[in-house]
Amino acid sequence: MGIKTREEYLERLKKMRKNVYIDGKLVDRTDARLKPGQNIIGVTYDCANDPNFEDICTATSHLTGEKINRFCHIHQSKEDLLIKQKMTRLLCHRTGGCIQRCMGIDAMNALSVVTYEMDQALGTDHYERFEKYLRYFQREDICANCAQTDVKGDRLKRPHEQEDPDLYLRIVESRDDGIIVRGAKVHNTVAPYADEIIAVPTRFMTENDSDYAVAFAVPADHEGVKLVVRPATQYKRVKLHAPIAELGDAESFTIFDDVFIPKERVFMNGKADPRQTPYAGFLALLFAHYHRHSYTGCKPAISEVLASAAALVAEYNGIENTKHVRSKLSHMIGTAELVYAAGESSAHHAERSASGTYIPDEILTNAGRRLAGEEIYNEYKILADLAGGLAATLPLEKDFFSEETGRLLNKYMKRNPKISSEDVHRCFRMIENALVSDLAGVMQVAGLHGGGSPQMETITMMARYDLEPLKDIAKYLAGIKKELGRYERPTVTPRKMLERFREMYGRLKE
Amino acid sequence: MGIKTREEYLERLKKMRKNVYIDGKLVDRTDARLKPGQNIIGVTYDCANDPNFEDICTATSHLTGEKINRFCHIHQSKEDLLIKQKMTRLLCHRTGGCIQRCMGIDAMNALSVVTYEMDQALGTDHYERFEKYLRYFQREDICANCAQTDVKGDRLKRPHEQEDPDLYLRIVESRDDGIIVRGAKVHNTVAPYADEIIAVPTRFMTENDSDYAVAFAVPADHEGVKLVVRPATQYKRVKLHAPIAELGDAESFTIFDDVFIPKERVFMNGKADPRQTPYAGFLALLFAHYHRHSYTGCKPAISEVLASAAALVAEYNGIENTKHVRSKLSHMIGTAELVYAAGESSAHHAERSASGTYIPDEILTNAGRRLAGEEIYNEYKILADLAGGLAATLPLEKDFFSEETGRLLNKYMKRNPKISSEDVHRCFRMIENALVSDLAGVMQVAGLHGGGSPQMETITMMARYDLEPLKDIAKYLAGIKKELGRYERPTVTPRKMLERFREMYGRLKE
Amino acid sequence: MGIKTREEYLERLKKMRKNVYIDGKLVDRTDARLKPGQNIIGVTYDCANDPNFEDICTATSHLTGEKINRFCHIHQSKEDLLIKQKMTRLLCHRTGGCIQRCMGIDAMNALSVVTYEMDQALGTDHYERFEKYLRYFQREDICANCAQTDVKGDRLKRPHEQEDPDLYLRIVESRDDGIIVRGAKVHNTVAPYADEIIAVPTRFMTENDSDYAVAFAVPADHEGVKLVVRPATQYKRVKLHAPIAELGDAESFTIFDDVFIPKERVFMNGKADPRQTPYAGFLALLFAHYHRHSYTGCKPAISEVLASAAALVAEYNGIENTKHVRSKLSHMIGTAELVYAAGESSAHHAERSASGTYIPDEILTNAGRRLAGEEIYNEYKILADLAGGLAATLPLEKDFFSEETGRLLNKYMKRNPKISSEDVHRCFRMIENALVSDLAGVMQVAGLHGGGSPQMETITMMARYDLEPLKDIAKYLAGIKKELGRYERPTVTPRKMLERFREMYGRLKE
Amino acid sequence: MGIKTREEYLERLKKMRKNVYIDGKLVDRTDARLKPGQNIIGVTYDCANDPNFEDICTATSHLTGEKINRFCHIHQSKEDLLIKQKMTRLLCHRTGGCIQRCMGIDAMNALSVVTYEMDQALGTDHYERFEKYLRYFQREDICANCAQTDVKGDRLKRPHEQEDPDLYLRIVESRDDGIIVRGAKVHNTVAPYADEIIAVPTRFMTENDSDYAVAFAVPADHEGVKLVVRPATQYKRVKLHAPIAELGDAESFTIFDDVFIPKERVFMNGKADPRQTPYAGFLALLFAHYHRHSYTGCKPAISEVLASAAALVAEYNGIENTKHVRSKLSHMIGTAELVYAAGESSAHHAERSASGTYIPDEILTNAGRRLAGEEIYNEYKILADLAGGLAATLPLEKDFFSEETGRLLNKYMKRNPKISSEDVHRCFRMIENALVSDLAGVMQVAGLHGGGSPQMETITMMARYDLEPLKDIAKYLAGIKKELGRYERPTVTPRKMLERFREMYGRLKE
Repeated sequence: MGIKTREEYLERLKKMRKNVYIDGKLVDRTDARLKPGQNIIGVTYDCANDPNFEDICTATSHLTGEKINRFCHIHQSKEDLLIKQKMTRLLCHRTGGCIQRCMGIDAMNALSVVTYEMDQALGTDHYERFEKYLRYFQREDICANCAQTDVKGDRLKRPHEQEDPDLYLRIVESRDDGIIVRGAKVHNTVAPYADEIIAVPTRFMTENDSDYAVAFAVPADHEGVKLVVRPATQYKRVKLHAPIAELGDAESFTIFDDVFIPKERVFMNGKADPRQTPYAGFLALLFAHYHRHSYTGCKPAISEVLASAAALVAEYNGIENTKHVRSKLSHMIGTAELVYAAGESSAHHAERSASGTYIPDEILTNAGRRLAGEEIYNEYKILADLAGGLAATLPLEKDFFSEETGRLLNKYMKRNPKISSEDVHRCFRMIENALVSDLAGVMQVAGLHGGGSPQMETITMMARYDLEPLKDIAKYLAGIKKELGRYERPTVTPRKMLERFREMYGRLKE
Repeated sequence: MGIKTREEYLERLKKMRKNVYIDGKLVDRTDARLKPGQNIIGVTYDCANDPNFEDICTATSHLTGEKINRFCHIHQSKEDLLIKQKMTRLLCHRTGGCIQRCMGIDAMNALSVVTYEMDQALGTDHYERFEKYLRYFQREDICANCAQTDVKGDRLKRPHEQEDPDLYLRIVESRDDGIIVRGAKVHNTVAPYADEIIAVPTRFMTENDSDYAVAFAVPADHEGVKLVVRPATQYKRVKLHAPIAELGDAESFTIFDDVFIPKERVFMNGKADPRQTPYAGFLALLFAHYHRHSYTGCKPAISEVLASAAALVAEYNGIENTKHVRSKLSHMIGTAELVYAAGESSAHHAERSASGTYIPDEILTNAGRRLAGEEIYNEYKILADLAGGLAATLPLEKDFFSEETGRLLNKYMKRNPKISSEDVHRCFRMIENALVSDLAGVMQVAGLHGGGSPQMETITMMARYDLEPLKDIAKYLAGIKKELGRYERPTVTPRKMLERFREMYGRLKE
Repeated sequence: MGIKTREEYLERLKKMRKNVYIDGKLVDRTDARLKPGQNIIGVTYDCANDPNFEDICTATSHLTGEKINRFCHIHQSKEDLLIKQKMTRLLCHRTGGCIQRCMGIDAMNALSVVTYEMDQALGTDHYERFEKYLRYFQREDICANCAQTDVKGDRLKRPHEQEDPDLYLRIVESRDDGIIVRGAKVHNTVAPYADEIIAVPTRFMTENDSDYAVAFAVPADHEGVKLVVRPATQYKRVKLHAPIAELGDAESFTIFDDVFIPKERVFMNGKADPRQTPYAGFLALLFAHYHRHSYTGCKPAISEVLASAAALVAEYNGIENTKHVRSKLSHMIGTAELVYAAGESSAHHAERSASGTYIPDEILTNAGRRLAGEEIYNEYKILADLAGGLAATLPLEKDFFSEETGRLLNKYMKRNPKISSEDVHRCFRMIENALVSDLAGVMQVAGLHGGGSPQMETITMMARYDLEPLKDIAKYLAGIKKELGRYERPTVTPRKMLERFREMYGRLKE
Repeated sequence: MGIKTREEYLERLKKMRKNVYIDGKLVDRTDARLKPGQNIIGVTYDCANDPNFEDICTATSHLTGEKINRFCHIHQSKEDLLIKQKMTRLLCHRTGGCIQRCMGIDAMNALSVVTYEMDQALGTDHYERFEKYLRYFQREDICANCAQTDVKGDRLKRPHEQEDPDLYLRIVESRDDGIIVRGAKVHNTVAPYADEIIAVPTRFMTENDSDYAVAFAVPADHEGVKLVVRPATQYKRVKLHAPIAELGDAESFTIFDDVFIPKERVFMNGKADPRQTPYAGFLALLFAHYHRHSYTGCKPAISEVLASAAALVAEYNGIENTKHVRSKLSHMIGTAELVYAAGESSAHHAERSASGTYIPDEILTNAGRRLAGEEIYNEYKILADLAGGLAATLPLEKDFFSEETGRLLNKYMKRNPKISSEDVHRCFRMIENALVSDLAGVMQVAGLHGGGSPQMETITMMARYDLEPLKDIAKYLAGIKKELGRYERPTVTPRKMLERFREMYGRLKE
């Protein structure tokens, strides 16, 4: 059966080779600091097995016709994109933020498109390899990280221009049976408790960068892979248990220390076949694109989680019905709705690629993701505003349960007499977690940069948006141009993206 | 045939009784100051007759099966809502802004829902009357104004509490053959060159306000109707003709000086039948709602018109490719996309009312309209920013054609040598129209207030949005509530709206 | 006596040679379209003669010891800068916006510094000439325009690189008795009713641009000077007279069609003496700097004028005490206070130049002016928000006085019963002028661009602000640098500006 | 001598009674979690003893003529206010944020004004007592917390209306030799390592609240005082020592469990003498006012600290000179300058109270503090934006020094070849501390709420700002009022504040 349980997932982790480093120590995957992240991934298995969520958390494999976890599915229709977006929103409500596992589904969908296109153009056999890997992926209900961002060294230089050639992940040797890769990828959420790592390029590659045109999948505990991990922390709770305190994140700085990847897991190899080099940029873009579309599901949920806390504390503080409070809540809700709407419209305007995989509209997806990124710090501000200073000055948990101060603290926490001191305490404790923990900082940065910062979305939007037909409107109104046709706002199609990409590559060559 | 031409429309205007006042004079509808507005309405007839726009500017009447102008159509499906939104966007590109005629279609759709609901609940026959009127409306391709906003007097008092009872439009007498109404409606775009005026209430009405629960349609030149009109102006061009200079707006302060409305044109009468009073608010809301959904079509177009001018002048100024310019253009484009997406999602989540008319989602529509309203002044700022001061200091037209200064001005207007001085002149002349004319000011205010200001959308959103299920997310994460179901973001249905409205009415009664 | 009256000023205008062109016609300076601007300048004469304003609107000439109009004064102390700022704020309240005459005082102060520095470095005698001119300027209480902005042609090319060399104002011939100049200057507020035009460079000039390093003063009606003028318009009032309707603006596109400037009025001549070329940029910057400091006086006043209208209409609309209204008013007031404070602090940190003239702090002045520019469109938005749509749909004046509609309109304008319909009418008529007139558009653009757009202030600030000492703070906190001295935020001194400027020029030479 | 050393301060702390609770344990003041805060206070002693800072960090006591730490000084002039502001800015650069000790100086200055006014009006002897306490305060160079914010229970009820009367600090018994107080104060920065706690009221008190009109000073380890403390945490560093890692904050939830305050330390007692009750609000306001003025010193420093980190990481990331980066840095710098300018202007417009103490201008101070609060989250966003994701995903410290991963991490951290990996590491480690630590969250919340949130500043501003003279501007321009005098923007004077306050109290009585 293609749908595994949380327990089966955790069992797999236990069996993995130790290659996770935390603060100078090699640890295994049962380390307590990795538990909060695993709890989040666990939700993706639970819900696929929960009849209440079955309609959205499972899908039918187009390869086997079997029921699979939707996180392993290749989007076969606009509906698939819409349901994926909805799933992401709903699950993020339960995890209080990032569901983490979308990386895998986004990487797999991007690969399905690009390997197919490559094969069609170059006569290679990447798609076949990919499909085989996909069958395994769906059958085992694999949780995957996607390792995209290279460390990049000097930002003003291309990969091959760096003093140290390893500052972008590269193929150091291409052999008949596979490749040997060296380099490092950063910001690898989920990697320390994922089954697999899927590596994709981080940018366009010029002809001279063909060694860097590489994509592959590798088990996360593979020989030579080193995961140096930053777990985000919160105060540990002892008595006042709550989901928010059990959920969290760990990020990996992943080092590929001359790692051998067998041929059947290699999906792009510019070193052996430089004709594949142009596809590096296409894959980079396409993974980012799917990932940003996933953000149109998770970001609304994050706005809603923050708004829910803001609404609750406003109620507890007795200010729920004041104009300025409602106006602030409404702003957060409005942002959530607009970002979600952008993703939905993007799905409705999606087009089918040659491989059969659906690709959402780029302009809309980027407009939506950007708004979310621009608003994230403001949303934290609103929550802090409505919560008041206590979120930052709340005594620690045990003081609420100690003999000397417990009774007094509970006495002085009382607000609305109808709400128990414990509920007030719980509410502020949650907001403390959300606003003033190490994890809160990580969530803010992720809200800004995850999937690409607003700056990146602006660049992508403007690369896709053709200003000439837009200017025709002004030319017509000004009398510079006599006619105005039916303005068609550029809807991106996979084909157009590919063409533009090829054109760009052409320019780069010159 | 149900589709008329621009000429037929203009012919009808010529035949109307003189009841338009401009600056102290009674004028007929061929007054030059009304021409710019008529040119805009003309586009709605032209495009319905243009094969290039036929698929979006015409529809099939659900009553007769005949092809009609889409501006006379009652939305029978989500698709209808999507096409109406698209039509609005496209036509607004051609008119450089507000298409003006959406008022009619929005009022008719709202009436189709409310009259049907009233009949079902009260056993009245309003829907039959409405349908008869609709047949006429579709057959004659009627251009209608919707008169909603009352002058309102003291804002802190309800209609019946005003010192002068006429400060909201009211039924002064209800007779067997019709009603006599008195009062005034303001902000009546299109009224001075519309065929018909459709009056609807501006707010909820309490039991004591039943005289004010009134809706009807009346020919715009009906006995007793006085249209006191403010035409927006621009410098008249003499040689440098261009569409932007021919398009414009005139607003009516419409006085109903004891006007008799025959029974077949009365769609609500709280005076005769106080049971109808609660439906006043429902109709007020529903017209506003359809109108805001129309704004998700026109507002993106307005952003695009401003962005098109900004992109063109940036090109002419030679700064088109600088980062800050692209970032600003991208912001405008992003706003357009997000507002449009909100309208699209709203259509996709629309529900069918009992009458068969589709109603878009309220939360999404309001979130979209609000963003547009919040951004409008900023968009003017961006255009002014990229155009530079010349938009405000450009010599007048004839100086460019005079012997003494023409040659010199053209010499000094030259920028990029590839672009003619005339085109530069045309570009800045258009931007002058857009930024520093009386009309520009009207467009800014309309962009903020038209269909309801952001303040109103916030109130509407929060009236519809149920915070309790939202708070459950926080309660679950904080451990206050043990379970979290599948969060369903409140999708408004006509039925829910009606229920809430009735409930509200119930509360008002107490 | 050095203080003239409004009448004397107007008399002078009458005597001037006809060289003003409006819409293809040569007109004299009594043209009605120039009256609104003259009314504004008139205030600067009235107040200097008004005992109530004497302490701020007059000063003591450092040359003659006589009492002069402060608009002719060279700042001899920080106090002078503070009083000038205060004068600007107060007079702008009376003119409903831009006082227009600051251009002259700003140009004169800049010239006083730069001519002195030039003489000191180059042994020239510009300061003597300037002083002689200044004596005349003070004695006659001269109203001057400063013509700075060139038409600039292709923005990507320097003056000498343009296809047409005249696209920056240049010296076409330098003779013993003076120079002949050709070119055009734009955005010349006040020029059509100023006594004199003072021309200064618009940017840095490189060695190859020495023909463009030119500064001089010329009577506004001088042979060869052509003023092509765009007067901003509003509906003319017939009965409802009010100051706002009598005040306005006219902008000149000023063409220098081979104009001879006698030597005693030439303050910079790079053609004859290329050593003067570097001072072109210094003068450009310094005029802009004084002008921006003036904006820290006028912009707060403009915010206050808009806030005053917003507060009044909020009162008339009965919403004055709602939270959101007070919050919006408070935002406008806060902006005014912050911009004014920036100017005050800038004056307190001013330094004395070698000539004795005081120069305010650059960072603070630019930070203040920038905030004003960033906020201007938002302030119009707030006023529109609180006024409601009526500002854009108000019937024209005569309809309020006509027999057929006057009584009805006044009936329906009634709001708070304690406020007369006429006052309500006056209030909305004023807001119509402020929001939806041609002049309103000009004021918006001027609010953004006048004295340099926010973009320009950012560039200036960052050119002056040394990031290295700032980074030392981070280096200290990070442990990269062991010590942290007393951080001195770069206070600009005239000397530093000059040094930096020379250094910049050095780089340009390479 | 009145200036103590860091060592003397720390010695005093060691001798204090144990009454600090952290996470359920009673700890003494040498607890490691209190060290970071003490390191900050230490800077205030170091700098007063450092010849480089002597001119700003010391003052001359107006009581004794001796040199004292400026943190113990009562402002005798505008200059004193300006130097205090400067001191705050400079010291906050060294502490990477909040200097914490301003609470004491602000409370003392407020008390100096209010006790004097009370005595004058009521014939009491509070000022004498205060002066005696002040002598001790200056002689011993006391570090004091000011405990203002009550827990407040049900926000919709006044103190005496609460179900539990202790939810505001109150006098439970007034005796000849002193008072007994009960209640709790929150957000008490510095309290766990302060010598003294000064308690002041949190709001206006009505007649029925006279038991709550209380102010006093008490040693922080006094019998009955319980400090329940939340120390903010960061990852502890082992090798990469840096100031930022040694500095921090601890907040106290301070419980007064029936504490006896001897008479000579009581500065207000509404229970014994209800005539003092009105002064509770005056003291609440005045402490807040001085504290907000201090924020015009610290907030610019915080903006600069964040900007310094942003500038440094931009340099290390090689993007320092891109337009958008400079524009973002410029925005932060501009905010710092504007807030500082508001404080300076406020000092220049300060007025002398009857006691001789200077009080800065309220409108300006609030406008400045508000801008800082509105911008704080945005400033974190900019830093996160320029730093990139690595701030949130940086491996932990020991991994950089371990054998297995140290070399590899340093290899892959390399960016600009001229900058060592260690410096890059140091830079990102600092930014991690600043952005994604528990302490970072506390700093954000403090930046928003400390001294009062923007909401509070808006309320204060509008309570002081008289809209009527402002409206006169509009009335004059509209022709509603014939004359316009010299508009004087309301400059608050202590006397006016007091009068307004008394008037307010008068209203409350009714």
